[in-house]
Amino acid sequence: MVQVLTQFDTIAAISTPIGEGGISIVRLSGEEAIKIANKVFKGADLTKVPTHTIHYGHIIDPKTNKVIDESMVSVMRGPKTFTREDIVEINCHGGIVVTNDILQLLLANGARMADPGEYTKRAFMNGRIDLTQAESVMDIVRAKTDKSREVAMNQLAGGLMEKIKAMRQELLDTMAQEEVNIDYPEYDMDDMTGKEMKDKALSVSAKIDQLLKTAQEGKIMRNGLATAIVGRPNVGKSSLLNYLTQDDKAIVTDVAGTTRDTLEEYVSVKGVPLKLIDTAGIHHTEDKVEKIGVERSKKAVESADLVLLLLDSSRQLSTEDQNLLRFTENKKRIIILNKSDLGTKVSQSMITKLTDSPIVVTSILQKENLDQLEKAIEKLFFSGIENSANQVMVTNQRQAGLLQKAKRSLAEVINGVDSAMPLDLVQIDLKDAWDTLGEITGESAPDELITELFSQFCLGK
Amino acid sequence: MVQVLTQFDTIAAISTPIGEGGISIVRLSGEEAIKIANKVFKGADLTKVPTHTIHYGHIIDPKTNKVIDESMVSVMRGPKTFTREDIVEINCHGGIVVTNDILQLLLANGARMADPGEYTKRAFMNGRIDLTQAESVMDIVRAKTDKSREVAMNQLAGGLMEKIKAMRQELLDTMAQEEVNIDYPEYDMDDMTGKEMKDKALSVSAKIDQLLKTAQEGKIMRNGLATAIVGRPNVGKSSLLNYLTQDDKAIVTDVAGTTRDTLEEYVSVKGVPLKLIDTAGIHHTEDKVEKIGVERSKKAVESADLVLLLLDSSRQLSTEDQNLLRFTENKKRIIILNKSDLGTKVSQSMITKLTDSPIVVTSILQKENLDQLEKAIEKLFFSGIENSANQVMVTNQRQAGLLQKAKRSLAEVINGVDSAMPLDLVQIDLKDAWDTLGEITGESAPDELITELFSQFCLGK
Repeated sequence: MVQVLTQFDTIAAISTPIGEGGISIVRLSGEEAIKIANKVFKGADLTKVPTHTIHYGHIIDPKTNKVIDESMVSVMRGPKTFTREDIVEINCHGGIVVTNDILQLLLANGARMADPGEYTKRAFMNGRIDLTQAESVMDIVRAKTDKSREVAMNQLAGGLMEKIKAMRQELLDTMAQEEVNIDYPEYDMDDMTGKEMKDKALSVSAKIDQLLKTAQEGKIMRNGLATAIVGRPNVGKSSLLNYLTQDDKAIVTDVAGTTRDTLEEYVSVKGVPLKLIDTAGIHHTEDKVEKIGVERSKKAVESADLVLLLLDSSRQLSTEDQNLLRFTENKKRIIILNKSDLGTKVSQSMITKLTDSPIVVTSILQKENLDQLEKAIEKLFFSGIENSANQVMVTNQRQAGLLQKAKRSLAEVINGVDSAMPLDLVQIDLKDAWDTLGEITGESAPDELITELFSQFCLGK
Repeated sequence: MVQVLTQFDTIAAISTPIGEGGISIVRLSGEEAIKIANKVFKGADLTKVPTHTIHYGHIIDPKTNKVIDESMVSVMRGPKTFTREDIVEINCHGGIVVTNDILQLLLANGARMADPGEYTKRAFMNGRIDLTQAESVMDIVRAKTDKSREVAMNQLAGGLMEKIKAMRQELLDTMAQEEVNIDYPEYDMDDMTGKEMKDKALSVSAKIDQLLKTAQEGKIMRNGLATAIVGRPNVGKSSLLNYLTQDDKAIVTDVAGTTRDTLEEYVSVKGVPLKLIDTAGIHHTEDKVEKIGVERSKKAVESADLVLLLLDSSRQLSTEDQNLLRFTENKKRIIILNKSDLGTKVSQSMITKLTDSPIVVTSILQKENLDQLEKAIEKLFFSGIENSANQVMVTNQRQAGLLQKAKRSLAEVINGVDSAMPLDLVQIDLKDAWDTLGEITGESAPDELITELFSQFCLGK
């Protein structure tokens, strides 16, 4: 298939994270990418080199002939590129000043500063990827664990896109059939067509439900599972936190120099990304017994997807324990009977009488049963996920929201048929569902949506 | 000249700054770079592709066949590479997890984690660059202003290396001549040879002095000029600070999320990088009149290379002004007579009687004469620099220290000849000077020094 590309102006941006590193890349994309790069490059004539080749030379300011840096320049001619346009990547010595100088030089020589996400946007506009794939590009960049990355890679490969496209095709076939019936009213086939429309609405609606079921998992994979560790003072919250944040579990999502206290801490428990809430508060309340400890716990619990409630198995349940048990009962939670090495005044069976929540008996200090705790976390949220990393998932709110909207339109279709509405009116709802699904992949997304969506990307992507 | 390369093991590292960005690069260098990359790459057979070409494909774990990321892989065969070895660069979707996963995969498939600076170290070990050039690589990465970058680029081009090599050659020729005389003592040429040795020592010593003169400028270009702004409360310190840190002057050397207060602030004044000292304190003391203000000023002044002392031209000199004038008199300083718009109770000529320091009359609030202030800063430190960005400079303490050491050895040579020491003993000092100069370029640098030097580099460079 011959793809006619829109000719966009040429954009430039620094595509590597900003900081001191070995290499930085300034990337050009667009019709004049090679021409502009060639103006500032001393080495091979880039307009004449074969595609997908790398060239050593110097970046010079053509006005002053001054050398800005030595660099390796990659020339990739469209359409076999990320954007399908001509792309030039200037691979320079890292560092903030030199990288920025090269960017400024390109802007002075005819390129325009790229908007955030504009390279990916062009890949979308030029038909290389759909919106779900574009979104997965950022999910890969922001992935918190290996599994998050796998899910995003699967989406980049087109998993969700294909499912949505298949559903849209079903709806389109039905609409086409209905058009025929409207055009030839002499064949009075309303009853049959109505049934067909309802069946199709039910079938697609069921498929949407399947996808929506993955939205919770998808959201967690993408954003991490907000996790609160609660319990009375000295029950072992700090020890648990220390265990969870030990080196092999901790996910470094921050950059050097950032103050530790204000950070969200992410850890990976069997591939499940946990976002630990109020970790500063935990150390605080364990250090000194404080009134504010309880208040902080309540706040943490409110925003949590998962509560890890610690009880002291060696001591009778206190009023505070009882309160915490009651306060967290509507949350997904795991009860940890800690300090099992010090005796059993509170047994697993005692707690089982109070709640259905999974219970794990541990001695965190002695490192006993911690693997069982990890398995409990995995099981509670990802019972099906071990085999489902290749499963298609809805990974963000935009996709989930549109699926719900499409489902509502399909419910209207079913309602309409059941209440014997004229089929050309029912058709409108069917068309709405079709349009809404198209917004997910971008086939029928309005310009503002697309602009808004890509603006959340990082610069240079 | 045929260069025989040492075969090193294959190293891998993330060569872009860590963070969320459009692109990250994982770089392999060494004998097995292409073989290892090929194991984890699904796409073209990298062992068969031409050098300096780019290939689209997927990074897969060969054990599980799972896709880690889609990526562009660059293959560059030695010796036309940064290290002179085979280099493979895996250009992947940015992000911390995915980049790290790829690195781990390479380590699991035969690569070793690179030490900081190891790529540049190999470029040195394989004879592509000398030590002064290697150092300039990091100077480029860390450059604070355009001029700093220019100086570093000039050094990377080999400016300093060539000067040092020429001096070593002079010393070597002299030593060779002396060897002849020792071997043929029947020609009693001691007097003549002694004179020659002394002349050469004087000549090389003078050249070293020339270079050492640039060390102060070089240090400033590299590290910034530590600058203290002092003056009594309300004299305009905050206004001056705000002027200096306005957008077009401020150099962003920090990364997003870093707490502002703890930062060193860098600004560029006509290409001179100023490192502003205690900027938090300035706002502090201007906000409320405080006793501690004076103490903070004293501390700031002590560590400063340049003092900007503000006086209020519209009011008589106070005791505090007098104290500050006295306290800073041994520093390089510029006296700023501010608030010229409010009258002239203190005139330029009054101050001229007290000090030789340059004086600038300004109204910072009215933006009067600020360009003169900038010119004064430029002149005070870089009188010759406008034309000397292409000048060879000594940019770090290591180089300066070795030059001084070589100079001392040459002084011993001169002493020795003057006191009629046996020439074979004088020869030892000459040889020392020759060795010391060789340490600068790395020709005679001990292994520990080289290890130490490269360990200060950033990872992936």
